[in-house]
Amino acid sequence: MTDQAKMQTSTAIIVRNEAFLAEADRLKPELREKAVRPRQLVQIAADSTAVHGYRSKPVADAAELEERSFGRGESFILDFGDHRVGYLSFAIRTVGSPPDAPLKVKLTFGEMPVEVAVPFDTYDGWISSAWLQEETLFVDVMPHRVELPRRYSFRYVKVEVLATSQKYSVSFHDFACRTVTSADSGQVAPLRHADPVLEQLDRISIRTLEDCMQDVFEDGPKRDRRLWLGDLRLQALANYETFNQNDLVKRCLYLFAGVPDEKGRVSANLFIQPTVIADDTYLFDYSLFFTASLYDYFVATNDRQTLRELWPTAYRQVELALERVDETGILRDDESWWSFIDWNDQLNKQAPSQGVLLYTLKRAVQLAEAVGEPGIAAQLAETIATLTAATMRELWDSEQRFFVSGAQRQVSWAGQAWLALAEILPEADNRDLLLRLQAANPDVGMTTPYMVHHFVEALLIAGCKEEAIARMKAYWGQMAQDGADTFWELYDPQNKSFSPYGSPLINSYCHAWSCTPTYLIRRYGL
Amino acid sequence: MTDQAKMQTSTAIIVRNEAFLAEADRLKPELREKAVRPRQLVQIAADSTAVHGYRSKPVADAAELEERSFGRGESFILDFGDHRVGYLSFAIRTVGSPPDAPLKVKLTFGEMPVEVAVPFDTYDGWISSAWLQEETLFVDVMPHRVELPRRYSFRYVKVEVLATSQKYSVSFHDFACRTVTSADSGQVAPLRHADPVLEQLDRISIRTLEDCMQDVFEDGPKRDRRLWLGDLRLQALANYETFNQNDLVKRCLYLFAGVPDEKGRVSANLFIQPTVIADDTYLFDYSLFFTASLYDYFVATNDRQTLRELWPTAYRQVELALERVDETGILRDDESWWSFIDWNDQLNKQAPSQGVLLYTLKRAVQLAEAVGEPGIAAQLAETIATLTAATMRELWDSEQRFFVSGAQRQVSWAGQAWLALAEILPEADNRDLLLRLQAANPDVGMTTPYMVHHFVEALLIAGCKEEAIARMKAYWGQMAQDGADTFWELYDPQNKSFSPYGSPLINSYCHAWSCTPTYLIRRYGL
Repeated sequence: MTDQAKMQTSTAIIVRNEAFLAEADRLKPELREKAVRPRQLVQIAADSTAVHGYRSKPVADAAELEERSFGRGESFILDFGDHRVGYLSFAIRTVGSPPDAPLKVKLTFGEMPVEVAVPFDTYDGWISSAWLQEETLFVDVMPHRVELPRRYSFRYVKVEVLATSQKYSVSFHDFACRTVTSADSGQVAPLRHADPVLEQLDRISIRTLEDCMQDVFEDGPKRDRRLWLGDLRLQALANYETFNQNDLVKRCLYLFAGVPDEKGRVSANLFIQPTVIADDTYLFDYSLFFTASLYDYFVATNDRQTLRELWPTAYRQVELALERVDETGILRDDESWWSFIDWNDQLNKQAPSQGVLLYTLKRAVQLAEAVGEPGIAAQLAETIATLTAATMRELWDSEQRFFVSGAQRQVSWAGQAWLALAEILPEADNRDLLLRLQAANPDVGMTTPYMVHHFVEALLIAGCKEEAIARMKAYWGQMAQDGADTFWELYDPQNKSFSPYGSPLINSYCHAWSCTPTYLIRRYGL
Repeated sequence: MTDQAKMQTSTAIIVRNEAFLAEADRLKPELREKAVRPRQLVQIAADSTAVHGYRSKPVADAAELEERSFGRGESFILDFGDHRVGYLSFAIRTVGSPPDAPLKVKLTFGEMPVEVAVPFDTYDGWISSAWLQEETLFVDVMPHRVELPRRYSFRYVKVEVLATSQKYSVSFHDFACRTVTSADSGQVAPLRHADPVLEQLDRISIRTLEDCMQDVFEDGPKRDRRLWLGDLRLQALANYETFNQNDLVKRCLYLFAGVPDEKGRVSANLFIQPTVIADDTYLFDYSLFFTASLYDYFVATNDRQTLRELWPTAYRQVELALERVDETGILRDDESWWSFIDWNDQLNKQAPSQGVLLYTLKRAVQLAEAVGEPGIAAQLAETIATLTAATMRELWDSEQRFFVSGAQRQVSWAGQAWLALAEILPEADNRDLLLRLQAANPDVGMTTPYMVHHFVEALLIAGCKEEAIARMKAYWGQMAQDGADTFWELYDPQNKSFSPYGSPLINSYCHAWSCTPTYLIRRYGL
């Protein structure tokens, strides 16, 4: 996710736990590198049937590039055949007289065709244009091998020769992307599935997760390249079913626990460079996901040592969340960006956040028991009972037979999904709720794969396997048909150019929170 | 100079003399470095009385920069107080929340205010826009110290923040230019002159030469950064009167002698990186200047070993030049760029080139004698007599009392100046010729400091000291009044925005061939 809208900043005092940070440092993964060559020279053509209006068309094998030379104003586009995260290098030689002026060359990187078709200077969105991946280089001495120091996330590279001189042109060769990931694809058990669509979704999910697994679990290798708790939780779930690199999850948990604020609250996200810095964004749901993520980690690993060390941080998130519960047993709502849930301006956060709280409390009880705190476990169980009753009393609309949220009593998809995930209704009632939700299709819908994941998982725990598969195919399956090499941050099948940022140029097209089909398929045996 | 117009290219076969190149390599100078800080924050204001229409105005001490912070769309301009050649570095820190997006920042370097006032994308001249000094950087992790790897030639640096995010701005500090030169200013004897203008011209000349003295004598540190024979000859003359770093001259002579073509002809200029490469530009006058430069070097150093080794190359240039003399004893004229003389499309090159040939032959005779080749010396003396008679017979117009050039019998400043430098008329007649030239002021004038140098030196050898000083003051003195920190490649006091390239943005404002006032003042005791 990204926090650049509606951010709730504070002047939190960070209390560094150096022992936790040292443990995180010890768990720093090695990055695996691979040299990947471009496959084809392509043209990008306007095509109204394509997502964002552009489609790539092969024009020649990439090996033919070497035979061509380029003067001022000439350009070409390389296709690396799949989504890549890494460092680009290439060689330049000159054709004609000795180069009597520097070369000026512009590179534009695109995960999607639109990024190498629409000039970046048309972008006028509200998040930083510095995320748009481009470089303008001057090369003084040739022949020369260019080794770009920044990491890019791309499939396409456009190369534009902005200036040579009248006496020489240039030829490019030996393009390579040194890809990086901390994921070891050798660890993934192959999925042979009777349903080729599910097999495809599994494969794309794993590619997505792989490209987001770097020094930490990043949310997106193009943009924001950061460790977010909401993304981490889903990446960890997908990881347990695939790469099983649990030390990377452990590292990320220690990082979050290493820089809480003075109340003990964990940040919604961390910066890792130049040092570990807690962002000044705190979100109700994301803080609770520390606790949920520790639960998932413990279930996957049975690592009691980590549980013991991180339990106080996990329990502290629950305590802080409960401070927001009012005398009726319901979370106080407000207008600020206090809880994330989904990228949806219309969404009231109260009911879904109540769901997140109950979902987490149920896992916290189990952690308290595992860590040998029966008193806390009993107290949490009591709280669950109280809040469950309050939720049914205050948020359940028995006429509409939906949960409502906020003063306007909003009926949202997110509210139903999260209160289904909280499992406060019997399984059959949950099933009815979710099927009724699909039928009623209230206006306040889901805008991100992140939210769709939670709805699909709610269907699965309610036993609606067919509906879950249908939803996955309609959503991630359609995304795959629309050309996703890795799953996108944002996708609305009804409005395929949706961007909350003002332009699809800045969307991320390999995004951690979209990688969950592999988890859903493998965990629930779809 | 620059060769990018009207270039005469050929497919010459280069015959490398590895012993000469090894000797040149042995003479490679150490670069001296100095850390220079910016002096002031300035604004550039439009001002129709300023050269190119812009003037710099101080607004604050550079130390105040640190107190300021800059968001998207904000910028500042630093003044480093004088012309600098070197490597820029600076530090960036962020203000506000942790930086949640990269910083995009653009740097523009200017030797002159116009370069940081007029956007480079307005440039539409015919030589490469890649010479315009700018960089667009993305900084992913901050705080950060930026160390730019390219060398720039500048006094002003404009810094524009193109993108941050809504959550942070940036502050800049610790700007430094690590200047580089192979010149040792400790070697220069101070000039205390009664005339403050001549003292000023001497000082600016030395600064110009210093900034052009790098790994070789460069023509201009901004553009082309290359070793040209015409520039080398004048730099060497200025050097003998100032830095006296004669090994650098020697190195450059060995470099030219190291890569002749298969006929033994030396190129008009060399590229030094990635290896020594002779450019495919050959010019009648520039090849002869190898011989003239060796003569000057021998006079300055009495280095007989070098003379012996390089004499065959020097003599070969004379032999090749004489092949162009027709049966009347005059150089064959043609329309191509066969001889440089001056940046002037109207100029016919025949008469001035005849002057260059005779000028060089007279020095070649002395070299032949010094090297112990009396037979060659006698033969050259005979050639001089023949060509002198031919010149008077064919090119002297006794009615106009000027030398004429080409089929159109053009009377040019360059023709009179070079045939005066050739000293084929008695000194008194030379004096009359030059004074008559000043009075008649023919249309085909002088466009570069390079040509004005030759006219002033002609005045001096003809004994017109007052006129020489007056011309220097009217030309270089006016350039200094117009704000030259170092002397400019191009300057026409009547048309101050003259550029042969289509825009003054691309002119070089520290140019070797303009550094000769120090030589003229010191050598002729002005």
